[in-house]
Amino acid sequence: MSADAGAEMTAYVHQAIPILGAMGLEVTEAADGRAAARIPLEPNRNHFGVIYAGSLFTVAEMLGGAIGFTALQLEGFVPLVKSLEIKFLRPAATSVTASTSLTPDEVERVRAEASSNGKADFELVCDVVDENGVVVASTVGQYQLRRMG
Amino acid sequence: MSADAGAEMTAYVHQAIPILGAMGLEVTEAADGRAAARIPLEPNRNHFGVIYAGSLFTVAEMLGGAIGFTALQLEGFVPLVKSLEIKFLRPAATSVTASTSLTPDEVERVRAEASSNGKADFELVCDVVDENGVVVASTVGQYQLRRMG
Repeated sequence: MSADAGAEMTAYVHQAIPILGAMGLEVTEAADGRAAARIPLEPNRNHFGVIYAGSLFTVAEMLGGAIGFTALQLEGFVPLVKSLEIKFLRPAATSVTASTSLTPDEVERVRAEASSNGKADFELVCDVVDENGVVVASTVGQYQLRRMG
Repeated sequence: MSADAGAEMTAYVHQAIPILGAMGLEVTEAADGRAAARIPLEPNRNHFGVIYAGSLFTVAEMLGGAIGFTALQLEGFVPLVKSLEIKFLRPAATSVTASTSLTPDEVERVRAEASSNGKADFELVCDVVDENGVVVASTVGQYQLRRMG
């Protein structure tokens, strides 16, 4: 994704979900079935000086929306999160980046199933990594691409 | 908890974890092994006009800290979250309140085990309920009370 496209999607998500703006979240990748986002330590720190659990959740969870509105984009459909499990593995004392991807076959399967049935479930597995390359959290999220209204 | 005690703990958590202040989170109960917190729809809304998943996660997750620093309070110990599973059951178009509790026996077990071993795991089950009494999300979190440093 070009820097311009990243800035454009970042501006969009800040408008769509204001608390992502308050977290200083940036979308750094959203193309070709891949998505990534970054949050800084400030203003996401907690009383231990590391990133708060809810911010780590958010930077991972929102990738379902980023993929839902890019690789999975289907006129009249929206992505929803159904459930998510997160493991907190290490404290995060720097900015962190979350990333995830869907294979081309899985993108095709989800779009075809949603077109036929009005909805299709998909799973995203995500690692949240600090500036030193340490995995600080991992998530498995269950999402659905669903026809609106 | 008195209104004053609630306001005092709310001010503390806003200082400790600034993003909780940005969400407008209020601690409404934190005594006798019980904890509850509320967040308003604004500024937690998403592009569907309902509360964003990450804010629902947060209002539930932070109760581990509220209980960790009240019922489980032990000099030199802090509560940590190890993992959390959240199910999103219904959209939340109003403010929501999350609540959880530990039995007196469980409080005693966790404090005794932490004192002996330097750490003790505990589980919190939490419902997040909207103003109409509808459960919009449910969580199961694994926490640990651990000696600092």
